[in-house]
Amino acid sequence: MTKIEGTKIAEELQEKIGAEIRQIEAQKKQLPGLTVIIVGENPASRTYVKKKHQTALKLGIRSQVEEFDNQVSRTEIVEKIDALNRNKHVHAILIQLPLPAHFDTWEILEHLNPAKDVDCFLPVNLGKILLNRTDIFPCTPAGVMFMLDYHKIDLNGLNAVMAGRSFIVGKPLAGMLTNKNATVTLCHSKTENLEKLTREADLVVAAIGKPGVIRPEMVKKGAILIDVGQNFLTNRKEVMEFCNPSQQMKFEKKGYGITGDIHIEAFKKASYYTPVPGGVGPMTVAMLMSNTLTLFKQQIGAGI
Amino acid sequence: MTKIEGTKIAEELQEKIGAEIRQIEAQKKQLPGLTVIIVGENPASRTYVKKKHQTALKLGIRSQVEEFDNQVSRTEIVEKIDALNRNKHVHAILIQLPLPAHFDTWEILEHLNPAKDVDCFLPVNLGKILLNRTDIFPCTPAGVMFMLDYHKIDLNGLNAVMAGRSFIVGKPLAGMLTNKNATVTLCHSKTENLEKLTREADLVVAAIGKPGVIRPEMVKKGAILIDVGQNFLTNRKEVMEFCNPSQQMKFEKKGYGITGDIHIEAFKKASYYTPVPGGVGPMTVAMLMSNTLTLFKQQIGAGI
Repeated sequence: MTKIEGTKIAEELQEKIGAEIRQIEAQKKQLPGLTVIIVGENPASRTYVKKKHQTALKLGIRSQVEEFDNQVSRTEIVEKIDALNRNKHVHAILIQLPLPAHFDTWEILEHLNPAKDVDCFLPVNLGKILLNRTDIFPCTPAGVMFMLDYHKIDLNGLNAVMAGRSFIVGKPLAGMLTNKNATVTLCHSKTENLEKLTREADLVVAAIGKPGVIRPEMVKKGAILIDVGQNFLTNRKEVMEFCNPSQQMKFEKKGYGITGDIHIEAFKKASYYTPVPGGVGPMTVAMLMSNTLTLFKQQIGAGI
Repeated sequence: MTKIEGTKIAEELQEKIGAEIRQIEAQKKQLPGLTVIIVGENPASRTYVKKKHQTALKLGIRSQVEEFDNQVSRTEIVEKIDALNRNKHVHAILIQLPLPAHFDTWEILEHLNPAKDVDCFLPVNLGKILLNRTDIFPCTPAGVMFMLDYHKIDLNGLNAVMAGRSFIVGKPLAGMLTNKNATVTLCHSKTENLEKLTREADLVVAAIGKPGVIRPEMVKKGAILIDVGQNFLTNRKEVMEFCNPSQQMKFEKKGYGITGDIHIEAFKKASYYTPVPGGVGPMTVAMLMSNTLTLFKQQIGAGI
């Protein structure tokens, strides 16, 4: 049972990204620019954005955060996007989701220049994944693939269950695993035999958003378990049931514990697994940095 | 065991499309325009294009075929696409695939105006399928969904095996079935347990391109079997093994027989099945007409 150390892998990757940025800066006197747009007061979003911003700054990326309150008009957001599209110092734009519910998210997202779509959310960028014709992938799926590749896990012919069909994780990741010759079953809330499917899978990716959904008896011995879930639990009983000992201790101080969608006891049956926290989460941030660098290189013509 | 009569369903649909075209013509004095570009001498492609052209003309579509020989330059094709993109009488453009091998197919396809991409092959249009935000789907997958809907087959919670991962059929159709709440396993040449997967599936869609791959013992009693394959057999032994009696008789006259990817004996176990010929094939043509009408209405602002 090998724990896939997302935090460590992310740090290694970020060091390489930082070094490459310094090298390009020395040669071309240019730095990658990333701007994150955040609207409203969602505390989880604020935390994620802060983390992304700090990491970017640390790597030498010109990172900016554009904050809007809930009352901002759709027009103001779109004008900001248009200005960032035109700004040649900004190579990567991220619109932190979810937007407050009164916005038409897609109408707004589609103003993004696809060449600066660092989260790879636009239809044209998702479509290129299906066609296997792209260098850029949504950050969370990209982080999952990076970790599998880091451990030289050969996906050829593996049976994979992708639990969760969001356009941010499940659908693109299913396509990416298929492109690597895995046989992927895409499961979701209407799937009637999830337990049977996961029990027969060589690889289970959980992106559901509920603690402990993938229970120990639902996984095969030796399976690879990738946990995309990030659940904040504030109820002591739930924390004791679902969180690892370190998070249980943190709960006493902080009043919450973090856990994923895969029950921690299931990890004991795995050949490889990603912990929560410290697995997919940090990799998502690292892949945002990687995507920013990729878009920067595409735009300045430095090759990739 | 219900045979899904693709030919009849396609004719019914085409009658409706023809009637709607006449109605819009009466009101708006405009007709939908479809242009097919075909390059080279692939005989199957020539046959398909002829069929599409004839059907379009019959429905009142202004159909044109632009033929190029193998020696045409990439620039000439791209200039033709640009001219068609600008031509306001042309609402739908189809580039018949495959292009001869010396062309970079995607470099050429990407010159198409996405609003006129009647085959729904461009990344932006494929991506919109994943996002469930489109009115247009690739013709073959659209035809499959139309037939299932015609027979009021509820896909909610069904286990589906999609065999074949092309961007023309397998990948978009897997996404479309997922959007209708089926649990889809996307299988391909590297899948190691196809037989087990199909045997447990409520719905099997075969888009492989080899006769009889899905054998009777590979399907569950009562399964829905959709056969996208269209194989031309010229060897008598193969024709007798794989083709239905009517095609066996035609073989004596024509020297070839047509069959799909699902063994004809497997159909006896099915609740519903599509024959080959006369199943998915005619529906693909009908959906091309339907897509032409949809793009026409989008472009003239007639609502959809």
